[in-house]
Amino acid sequence: MKNDLTGTSIIGRSRGAVTADAFRAFDPTTGNAVEPAFYSATLDELDRAAALAEAARIPYGVIPGRERAIFLRRIADNIEALGDELIERATLETSLPNARFVGERGRTCMQLRMFADLLDEGSWVDARIDHAIPDREPLPKPDVRSMLRPVGPVAVFCASNFPLAYSVAGGDTASALAAGCPVIVNAHIAHPGTAELVGNAVADAAMECGMPEGVFSLLFSSGYDIGQALVKHPSIKAVGFTGSRRGGRALMDIAAARPEPIPVYTEMSSVNPTFILPNAVRERGDAIVEGLLASVTGGVGQFCTKPGLVFLPTGSPGDGFAEKFDRMIEDTAPAPLLTGGISDAYKAASSKRKNEVKGFTFNTQSDLEGFAVNPSTFEVPAVDYLNTPELNEEIFGPTTLLVRSDRHDELLAIARSLEGQLTASVHGTEEDLRSYADLIAILETKVGRLIFNGFSTGVEVCPSMVHGGPYPATSDGRSTAVGSRAMTRFARLVCFQNFPDPSLPDELKEANPLGIDRMIDGKMSRI
Amino acid sequence: MKNDLTGTSIIGRSRGAVTADAFRAFDPTTGNAVEPAFYSATLDELDRAAALAEAARIPYGVIPGRERAIFLRRIADNIEALGDELIERATLETSLPNARFVGERGRTCMQLRMFADLLDEGSWVDARIDHAIPDREPLPKPDVRSMLRPVGPVAVFCASNFPLAYSVAGGDTASALAAGCPVIVNAHIAHPGTAELVGNAVADAAMECGMPEGVFSLLFSSGYDIGQALVKHPSIKAVGFTGSRRGGRALMDIAAARPEPIPVYTEMSSVNPTFILPNAVRERGDAIVEGLLASVTGGVGQFCTKPGLVFLPTGSPGDGFAEKFDRMIEDTAPAPLLTGGISDAYKAASSKRKNEVKGFTFNTQSDLEGFAVNPSTFEVPAVDYLNTPELNEEIFGPTTLLVRSDRHDELLAIARSLEGQLTASVHGTEEDLRSYADLIAILETKVGRLIFNGFSTGVEVCPSMVHGGPYPATSDGRSTAVGSRAMTRFARLVCFQNFPDPSLPDELKEANPLGIDRMIDGKMSRI
Repeated sequence: MKNDLTGTSIIGRSRGAVTADAFRAFDPTTGNAVEPAFYSATLDELDRAAALAEAARIPYGVIPGRERAIFLRRIADNIEALGDELIERATLETSLPNARFVGERGRTCMQLRMFADLLDEGSWVDARIDHAIPDREPLPKPDVRSMLRPVGPVAVFCASNFPLAYSVAGGDTASALAAGCPVIVNAHIAHPGTAELVGNAVADAAMECGMPEGVFSLLFSSGYDIGQALVKHPSIKAVGFTGSRRGGRALMDIAAARPEPIPVYTEMSSVNPTFILPNAVRERGDAIVEGLLASVTGGVGQFCTKPGLVFLPTGSPGDGFAEKFDRMIEDTAPAPLLTGGISDAYKAASSKRKNEVKGFTFNTQSDLEGFAVNPSTFEVPAVDYLNTPELNEEIFGPTTLLVRSDRHDELLAIARSLEGQLTASVHGTEEDLRSYADLIAILETKVGRLIFNGFSTGVEVCPSMVHGGPYPATSDGRSTAVGSRAMTRFARLVCFQNFPDPSLPDELKEANPLGIDRMIDGKMSRI
Repeated sequence: MKNDLTGTSIIGRSRGAVTADAFRAFDPTTGNAVEPAFYSATLDELDRAAALAEAARIPYGVIPGRERAIFLRRIADNIEALGDELIERATLETSLPNARFVGERGRTCMQLRMFADLLDEGSWVDARIDHAIPDREPLPKPDVRSMLRPVGPVAVFCASNFPLAYSVAGGDTASALAAGCPVIVNAHIAHPGTAELVGNAVADAAMECGMPEGVFSLLFSSGYDIGQALVKHPSIKAVGFTGSRRGGRALMDIAAARPEPIPVYTEMSSVNPTFILPNAVRERGDAIVEGLLASVTGGVGQFCTKPGLVFLPTGSPGDGFAEKFDRMIEDTAPAPLLTGGISDAYKAASSKRKNEVKGFTFNTQSDLEGFAVNPSTFEVPAVDYLNTPELNEEIFGPTTLLVRSDRHDELLAIARSLEGQLTASVHGTEEDLRSYADLIAILETKVGRLIFNGFSTGVEVCPSMVHGGPYPATSDGRSTAVGSRAMTRFARLVCFQNFPDPSLPDELKEANPLGIDRMIDGKMSRI
C-alpha cells in the first residue's frame, strides 16, 4: 500500500496522538471490524487545530482567489492520484459498489474544480460600488464599496452516505476553502480510512501550495464529544453538517446557545414527496414504476433525496402500479446499510410502520448478514396518512410509503400538512401542471426544488441548483449545499467607505483589475 | 385632526378591541403621559393576524413584482399625505426635533420607493438557468432554473430610535413586503401614535391596491408577551428587530427553540470603534473633534452607529484633542432620551463607568426634566481598557469612551479583543492606512463596514451598503438591514427542474419577458 493508514488525526502540519480511545471501521457485508485502528482526537488536539485555524484565518482569507483555486485543483489532483486504493477502501468501509465510488470521486473532484473556476472568474463576491457625490444636498454622498469576505474557520461534519462528495474534501469543505475559510473536519466513524486518505490529499495540497498551517485539520472521534466541542469552540464561525435530524438539530441547538451564536448549515431530513397524477399513471405508468424503484433503492435507499412518500391515485391504474411496485420490491435483493446503527434504525422503523399502515410488502429473505436489510414498501389511504403524523418521518434505507388518493382537495390538504423538504416531484401532463397550479404553489413554500416528470435522486451540480429547503430538510432554507451558490454560505458582506483605491481589495478597485462582474451605481457592469 | 387615533391594533382589514390593558406614550421632555390610550392586542387577535398573514402568503407571494411596487409607492404616498400631523406626533412622542422627522420621513419614503424600483427592474431575484443536455454521458443533464422567492410571513419589531425609518413602514417592513412576504408589526411602546398613523397609511394602501387581506397587521402591546408569542407563532417564518442586545438575544433564543427554527435578523449592540491615528490628530485634530462631537451627540447619542469607543494617541496632540472634546461635552446641553427606561439605563451605566475608568467629564447641569440626561465622556489608558471587558458594553445615549494608546501592537491587541461591530472607523493619512494594514485586516473580521476618515453615523441607503456585522452587532452577520440587499433577507431559493415554460415564473421563462439580468449556463446575461 502506498498510503499506510496511521489512524491519527491531522492537526495542521502534524499528526495527533495514538490515544487510548481506539475504534475501527466495519465491513457492512459481514458486520466485522476492519483494520487498522483509528484514534479519537483529544480536546487538547481540537484546541490546537482551532488555534491553528484561527491563526490561518487572516493570512488564508487574503490569499487571492486565483491562488486558492490552485490549492483546490491540487486537492482534486491528489485525490485522483490515490487511485484504486481510495476506491477500494471506500468500498470496504461501506459495501457500496466500486462503480459508485468511481462516480462519486469524479463528482468530488469536479466540485473542487468548479469552485476553482468560480475563484478564477471572480464574480462570486457580489462586488458593488457606489461612487461618491461630494456636492449632493443636503449631505455629500460617500464612496461605498462592498463584497463577500470569508466568515472565518468552518467545522465540517462528514456525511455517512457520501464518503467522498460530502465528507473530508466534499461540497462543504470545498465551498468553505473556496470562500477563504480554514476548515476543521470531523471524520465520520463509518469510513475513517477513506477520511484519512482524503485528509492526506488535502494536507499535502496545502503544503505543496504554500497555504498557511491550520487551513485544514481532520479530527477522528469515536463519539459525539469532539464534534460538539468543535461547534462550541469560539474560533469556529460556521458549521456544515449532513446527517440525521436528531444530530443536526443537536448541533443547531449548541450553535444557537453559544455566547456568540454562529450560522449552521445542517442537511437533515426529507421524505421528498412525489405526486403521481392520474394521467401519468395511465400514460407512463411502467416507466414511472421503474424509475421509482431505482430512486427508492439506489445507494440502498440512503440518499437524502430518496422519495419516501409517493402519492398514487386510487382505482385501477393506481392499483396496477402499486402491485407492480410491490412485486419489484419483493424481487429486490437485500443489501447492507452503511452502519450497524443505520441498519438497526431501519429495522425498528420498518417494524413500527407495519403497525401504522394497512398494507406492506417486504422482501422476505431472512438470512441477512452483516448490516443487510430487506427492501420494503408500505401503503396507506390518504385519510389515514393525514391522521398519522408519524408517517412523515423519514426512514433512511430502501423503503417508501405509497399514499392513495386522487382527490384534488385531499392532495392540497396533504401538501399543506407537509414539513419542509429538499424536493417535491410531480408526474403528469403539462395540462395537469396547469390544473394543479394550486398544488405547485403550496409545494413551492415547502421545498427547495420542484421536479416535473423526474425523480428527486440525482442532484445536478450547476449554478442554478438548490439543494436545500425549509426546516427540517435543512437548518437554513435560504441556502443550498450543492452548486456554485454553496460558497456564499461561508461568506459575509464587508463594506469599505471612502477607502483610497490602493487600500481596497482588488475586487473593489476602480480599474477592476480582476475583470469581474460588478454592480456599479446600481447597474451590473464588467467595465 | 384628520386622523383620529383609535389606539386599537390593525388586524388585516379590521381593528382590534379596546382591551383592559391600556397604555400611553410619554412626552420625554416632561416625562408626562400623552393621550390617547393605546390597547394591547390579545393573543386571540395575534392568532387572527397570523391566520390572515398565512392565508395571504401564497396570493401575495405570487403577485408580480411590478404590482408590489405600486403597493410600496402607495404606502410612501400615503405617509407623505399625513403631512405635519405625522411629524408633530413623532416629535411629541420622542422630543426629537421636527427637522429630524422631516428627514426621517424622506428616508422612509425613499426606501419604499427604492425597493419599488428594484421590483420594477426585477433582477434582484438572482434568476439562474442551466439548460438541459439530453444526450450528455453518462447521464442526461436536466433543465434547472432557480430564483429567490418570499420566505413567508415576517414579524417586524419597531425600533425605539427610528420611529419612521425602522418602524411600521421602515426598512424591515419595506424589504419584507418587497420580497413578497406579509408583515405583522409589533409597535414600539414609546411611539404608538406614530405607529398608528403609519399603520393606517399601510393598511389603506393595501386596500387601495387590492392586496390580499392579511398582507399587513399592526399589534400594540404594553409588554413583551405579544412580541414573544409572535416570534413563536408557527405561521411566522422570519423576524426583523432593532433594539437592545438583551431583547434581541431573547428573540433569537425563542426563534432557535421553536419546533421549526426560523431566521431572525436582530440589530442589537455596537460600540463602533473609532481609531484616530497620530497623523490625523496632528493634521486635522480640530475637524475630527467637531465631527466626533456631532457623531456622539446626534440624535442624543441614540444611533446604533454612534462611536462609543475612540482610540486616541497618548502624548500632547492627543491630550489637546481630549481636553477640547471634554470641554465641548461640558458645553452640550442635556437632552431627553426616548423613554424613561433608556434614560434610567443611561444614568445607571454612566455611574457604573465612572468607577471603571480614570477620567470622566459630565455636563453637570443638574435640573434635568423628564427623560433628559447629561452628555458625558470617559477616558482610560489602553492597558486598563484591555483588562476591563465591561468597557466594551454599549451605553445608549450621548457618551463615549476615549482609550489612550499609540502603540501599534496595543491597537492590534485591542482590535483582536473586540466583539462583532456594525462599523469601525480609522482616521489617518493614506500612508497610515498602508502601515496599519494589519489593523484593518483584523477589523475586517469584526465589522460590517470600515470607514476611512469619516464617522460611523449616517448610513447611506445604496446598493453597496452593509449595515450588519458579526454578533452581537447583529444576529446574522451575513446580512444587511440597510440598502437594496436587505430584501434578500426575506427570500429563499427555489429551484424548478424540467418545468415546461408556461408553468415557470416569468423570471425563469426562456424568453426573459421581464428583461432581467440572469445567469444563463454560468454566464450573466440580459438576453
